[in-house]
Amino acid sequence: MQSAALEAVRYSGGVLEYLDQRLLPQQERMVRARTVDEIETAIKTLAVRGAPAIGVFGAYGVALLRDALTSDNEFNAAAQRVRNARPTAVNLAWAVDRVLASHDMVAEAETIHREQQTIDLRMAEAALELFPMNARIITHCNTGPIATAGGGSALGAIIAADRAGKRVSVYVNETRPLLQGARLTIYELHRAGIEATLMVDSAAAIAMQRQKIDLIILGADRIARNGDTANKIGTYGLAILAAHHGIPFYVAAPRSTFDFHMNSGAGIPIEERHATEVREFAGAASAGEKTPVYNPAFDVTPGHLITAIVTEYGIVRPPYGESIPALADRPNAGVLL
Amino acid sequence: MQSAALEAVRYSGGVLEYLDQRLLPQQERMVRARTVDEIETAIKTLAVRGAPAIGVFGAYGVALLRDALTSDNEFNAAAQRVRNARPTAVNLAWAVDRVLASHDMVAEAETIHREQQTIDLRMAEAALELFPMNARIITHCNTGPIATAGGGSALGAIIAADRAGKRVSVYVNETRPLLQGARLTIYELHRAGIEATLMVDSAAAIAMQRQKIDLIILGADRIARNGDTANKIGTYGLAILAAHHGIPFYVAAPRSTFDFHMNSGAGIPIEERHATEVREFAGAASAGEKTPVYNPAFDVTPGHLITAIVTEYGIVRPPYGESIPALADRPNAGVLL
Repeated sequence: MQSAALEAVRYSGGVLEYLDQRLLPQQERMVRARTVDEIETAIKTLAVRGAPAIGVFGAYGVALLRDALTSDNEFNAAAQRVRNARPTAVNLAWAVDRVLASHDMVAEAETIHREQQTIDLRMAEAALELFPMNARIITHCNTGPIATAGGGSALGAIIAADRAGKRVSVYVNETRPLLQGARLTIYELHRAGIEATLMVDSAAAIAMQRQKIDLIILGADRIARNGDTANKIGTYGLAILAAHHGIPFYVAAPRSTFDFHMNSGAGIPIEERHATEVREFAGAASAGEKTPVYNPAFDVTPGHLITAIVTEYGIVRPPYGESIPALADRPNAGVLL
Repeated sequence: MQSAALEAVRYSGGVLEYLDQRLLPQQERMVRARTVDEIETAIKTLAVRGAPAIGVFGAYGVALLRDALTSDNEFNAAAQRVRNARPTAVNLAWAVDRVLASHDMVAEAETIHREQQTIDLRMAEAALELFPMNARIITHCNTGPIATAGGGSALGAIIAADRAGKRVSVYVNETRPLLQGARLTIYELHRAGIEATLMVDSAAAIAMQRQKIDLIILGADRIARNGDTANKIGTYGLAILAAHHGIPFYVAAPRSTFDFHMNSGAGIPIEERHATEVREFAGAASAGEKTPVYNPAFDVTPGHLITAIVTEYGIVRPPYGESIPALADRPNAGVLL
């Protein structure tokens, strides 16, 4: 049962809309964003989420605000608010800066969007060789079409491998606190007709021990020059578990996710989000409302725990200290595409 | 702010009551159990939970049913239903068998209960040397007074260490799917006036990396002769993470949790529970209602990942192949107490 991919971000005739991902899987609702408040809130509340999708949405948002705001000061302040709406991923700042530096902002945002779709296709092609027939896979969080406003990164590669005849089966971590795995990844996999099984995050270890897992593949929010990778909370632990079980651990991320100015993951800021995310889900409380909470939204996985990184330029392998700087010399994104 | 400990199980004058732990932390409600259906359901639905508390409750339950059921056949069938209400923990079957073999079943159940309280005190005394001053601890699931119908095992040891002046600080895994950490452990720690911080299970790795964790301590449902330990899902992964970070990983469990007939963890049955536990969070749906789910309630941690096991007879250390069989020679529980 394959349906058309969901569109995370849509721009047409001056109208910017986003899929409100907080409502999935119960509702597929497109919402219009007109003002800087609406754009910033959509990003901060994770109505739009996934590093590449945020980049595409921020790019359109800034282009839209350029037309809406006549004062340069007001526009510049608004653009900075969009640029800084989330701190960990590098795509948002990169996309906003690119739009700001362009002559036709709308055209530039559209180019970024088209490039993302091409990049995702190329990542999926590059990843194909990593999947054995009947591959049993663990993934974490959501890296599907709705996370990139394209075909998806890690989940896009999984879906493409299945369409290429590999017959994959996916164990999906629910991904607390916001349950992107349960709400979004399961939804996208079933929509694509792929066998998908949900589990709690802490079942990943026994799954690796007993369920014949062939590989783990997931996305990234920022990658340093040495391969250290910031991604959704839980990624670092999965990488340690994978190493312990001798299971390959892959990251799929476009070149724009690499921060070539950062020598290691030590410098990547880790966003800590609000305690209510952990104390509750969808309004249902677990702990008391004053419970102190530790809620880092991301962690940093050392490069030495990552088997390989899939990019639109092919598979990047250790030693990352050489292969990642080499990637820096390739033109970014769509300049080539 | 220290309050009286919660009572998980209470028996007096022929009336058996249990604290319905599903209602915590919102409500502290004692519920009466009269029939085999009510006793079995309380165990199966986790209204009463924690291996030792289930043992105490099952012991009283069987003693109560002996008085209620005049037919021997009916009583024997009822006792077997109680004995088999949950398969992984060894305490329930052990306590029921002990009551069945006794002449005064009520007195035997009361002895088991009193013994549990003494055992918990001795475990806490034995564990004290494992806690440095200002110890920063990770724990998982709930092993407090309400889990044992006594002082608690691992969480009892943490509380006792704090009362002995160690000033502990505890990072509590929320423990999906049933959130015993968020609902019960946070509640018991705050009730005991101890600093406790809640986190999602998949934040444990970054906490070990960045929050100066001194030790991990948690309970067990069954321990084999070689130290392999069945415990709440997530324990095995935590043990791998602890080894990776060089952090001591302790299990606290009474002698009755050891299965001296089982040579390794390979033979321990792993209960798989219903998919709805994972598809929902505290009653709020996450994934769609037909989503396939992998929901093992326990995992088995190899003995070589466990630094030491705290028992009422002191600290049991590797090589477990020698120290655990030696423990088998000690009298079980209260024969000594």
